[in-house]
Amino acid sequence: MTIRRIFVANRGEIAVRIIRAARELGIGTVQAYSAADRDMLAVRLADTAVPVGPAHAKKSYLNKDAMLKAAIEHGCDAVHPGYGFLSENADFAGMVEDAGLVFIGPKAETIRAMGDKATARIMAARAGVPTVPGSEGRIEDPGEALRIAESIGYPVMIKASAGGGGRGIRVAASPADLDRLIPQASAEALAAFGDGGLYLERFVPRARHVEVQILGDGENVIHAYERECSLQRHRQKVWEEAPAACLSPAVREELCASAVRLAKSVSYRGAGTLEYLYDADRGDFFFIEMNTRIQVEHPVSEMITGIDLVREMIRVAGGEKLSLSQDQVRLGGHAIEVRINAEDPAMGFRPAPGTISALSVPGGMGVRFDTMLYQGYSVPPFYDSLLGKLIVWDTDRPAALRRLARALDELKVEGVPTTAALHRALAGDPQIQAGDVHTRWLEGWLETNPLTPEQGSPLPLTA
Amino acid sequence: MTIRRIFVANRGEIAVRIIRAARELGIGTVQAYSAADRDMLAVRLADTAVPVGPAHAKKSYLNKDAMLKAAIEHGCDAVHPGYGFLSENADFAGMVEDAGLVFIGPKAETIRAMGDKATARIMAARAGVPTVPGSEGRIEDPGEALRIAESIGYPVMIKASAGGGGRGIRVAASPADLDRLIPQASAEALAAFGDGGLYLERFVPRARHVEVQILGDGENVIHAYERECSLQRHRQKVWEEAPAACLSPAVREELCASAVRLAKSVSYRGAGTLEYLYDADRGDFFFIEMNTRIQVEHPVSEMITGIDLVREMIRVAGGEKLSLSQDQVRLGGHAIEVRINAEDPAMGFRPAPGTISALSVPGGMGVRFDTMLYQGYSVPPFYDSLLGKLIVWDTDRPAALRRLARALDELKVEGVPTTAALHRALAGDPQIQAGDVHTRWLEGWLETNPLTPEQGSPLPLTA
Repeated sequence: MTIRRIFVANRGEIAVRIIRAARELGIGTVQAYSAADRDMLAVRLADTAVPVGPAHAKKSYLNKDAMLKAAIEHGCDAVHPGYGFLSENADFAGMVEDAGLVFIGPKAETIRAMGDKATARIMAARAGVPTVPGSEGRIEDPGEALRIAESIGYPVMIKASAGGGGRGIRVAASPADLDRLIPQASAEALAAFGDGGLYLERFVPRARHVEVQILGDGENVIHAYERECSLQRHRQKVWEEAPAACLSPAVREELCASAVRLAKSVSYRGAGTLEYLYDADRGDFFFIEMNTRIQVEHPVSEMITGIDLVREMIRVAGGEKLSLSQDQVRLGGHAIEVRINAEDPAMGFRPAPGTISALSVPGGMGVRFDTMLYQGYSVPPFYDSLLGKLIVWDTDRPAALRRLARALDELKVEGVPTTAALHRALAGDPQIQAGDVHTRWLEGWLETNPLTPEQGSPLPLTA
Repeated sequence: MTIRRIFVANRGEIAVRIIRAARELGIGTVQAYSAADRDMLAVRLADTAVPVGPAHAKKSYLNKDAMLKAAIEHGCDAVHPGYGFLSENADFAGMVEDAGLVFIGPKAETIRAMGDKATARIMAARAGVPTVPGSEGRIEDPGEALRIAESIGYPVMIKASAGGGGRGIRVAASPADLDRLIPQASAEALAAFGDGGLYLERFVPRARHVEVQILGDGENVIHAYERECSLQRHRQKVWEEAPAACLSPAVREELCASAVRLAKSVSYRGAGTLEYLYDADRGDFFFIEMNTRIQVEHPVSEMITGIDLVREMIRVAGGEKLSLSQDQVRLGGHAIEVRINAEDPAMGFRPAPGTISALSVPGGMGVRFDTMLYQGYSVPPFYDSLLGKLIVWDTDRPAALRRLARALDELKVEGVPTTAALHRALAGDPQIQAGDVHTRWLEGWLETNPLTPEQGSPLPLTA
């Protein structure tokens, strides 16, 4: 089928991104908005906008019935879920399909299968994609734990089967450690989750987060190379790059091929991301999970390949084939995205909604600012704090870092504090410049590099 | 030598462009400004800004002594002239060299040689680059003109040796025409350029303007493919594309190779453009003239090759070699630039200075807006009316045209009329979409497609 009108079931910058892609395809747009979002940029840019409920996301952007009803009432033949909200909700995707509309993403059954981490891990193993070595399910007794630890190699992580958020996790460097820590971990798990079950995984001390962007049309699957997102705070990505500078060409090829294999095994349709843990010391990568949607950091992949990922996911959802084959995907240069959030880095990154009293957007070659901002816009306090994404491209990583610093110096957002000063400081950091980071590096850096409210542009550009 | 501080001897968007390139190279900037320009964006972005004279360009941006004095007094070791003003003034380049500073451009002697159209034509012939059949240099008397016109065939063009911008040009369809028009053209050339010298050329009725971007380091010369700038009004370019869709791959290769040959023959250093007339009916190209500077439309070449031309010209001026070889130059996709001028298309393109009361800049993938504007800026009435350049890139020309239309729909400049509506109308025109234009096409189109002040976004995007 040919899509004629898309219902944009999201808000903020990704709604703007979707509207732009749709317009360039000659497709109409109907923008959903909550009571708190009637002045947002996407409402101004869309052909039509429709209220879907009160500010509270549960009653608007997460309200499956309200969203589908609005899409149907406004004559839409497709729904784009963006990221977050209903984007990985298999039930919603199924409802959209059942109503005869196109869900711009994979089929509901794919979302359901890949959304379950245990199932995804099994699918990965079947496709020959490595996962973190560990016990197959729970360990039954200390003797089994010792045998398994021996086979996966120390150090190992002891994790709670029912756990989450890091609780109950212990790292054992030796059989003696394991003997000592298993009872502790089990007791803590029992106290925290009412279940003392444990499982084991290899511990990667300086793990890096790499992820592969894939695109499928239900038949063919291609990759658009990988991103590195090791700079995280509280497990939230704050800075993303493409390609991953830590990979050798041989590992890159192997990694991307593994992602295509897994996505092909589920006849994937749409844009998707396979997240991996990368052990730079050993050169090993392990599949962690799949995100069956467009991601916040997708623009860095667009910048190094020239592929418009959102356009492509709309096209394939409409029944078209991928517009290019793998050998037409060219990797060129290096891209970095930094998230500009309405948060105060000097106050523990406290979210800080408010009104944008002045806005000056950086420009020039290789600079892209995907934002929901305009001068006079009031950032509502109800949603995540992402204001925009500053993306730079240059011929290599050192040049991209210098361009990033230059662009950040030009960015002026007045009225709310932002994380721009954090990124400006990071762009000048020698360890970032050397690419010597891991997923827990930023939290340590923040402890020793407290940001002040005054911090920002005065840093030397050539540092 | 290594450049440490650049004097920006220009204004407007190109000054901003130069500052950005310098900052990314870790080079300081001192921005020249006239009394009318103290609030311009480049003054805000540069490390330092220095007044160089009153609003009248002759007394500021064209004042060689004042410019050089300011550069020296502020410790600059290089001068970037941008385009226009002193950019092709060999005397100024010589003064800068003699003072021990770097002129960011070719050597004074190269500017002098290539700046004289007749000399440039002789150099081209020596390098085996075809020129429009015409007189070998200046015509000395009417008798010679008649003999030459006879040999090249009517109609012929009469042009000013020292000319530019279309002034002093006449087309003669017969010997009688020639007799009558030569004295007129000579008088006009004398008045405009202080030199009444003329030359003759074959007149090509549906000529297209193509030009090759070259880069040299004094030894090696590479090209960054060609641009087409056939959409002109009063011989001023208003819309530029790269690559030129009218060329076959074979003609493209021949054309670009000819440009490299000519530039190599003068050991060219810096960024330069060789302008050609392309006779699409016959498939012939003819060298017209060389511009020994960066050009307004350089970003389209940057978008299709990824080469930062302004960075590269600074590097080679500082004594470095070109950062890439010809076989590393990759041509990808299609780029279009449209000039957003403070002119009222509904009032004969009358320049319309004023204060920018609101500004909304288009964004997203493949969109770049190189501008001097910010909200609250007052456009002074003393200089050219260029406010900014909207540049789009996409995988092919039809997609780039759709992206251009989308970006123009997002652009909002309030406070002054602009040429955006003209470009929005052109983006939807079937003949533009077919690429079926020539250098006088736009003037005809404007006669039959008068723009109204209301004209702009309501045009159908898919047209």
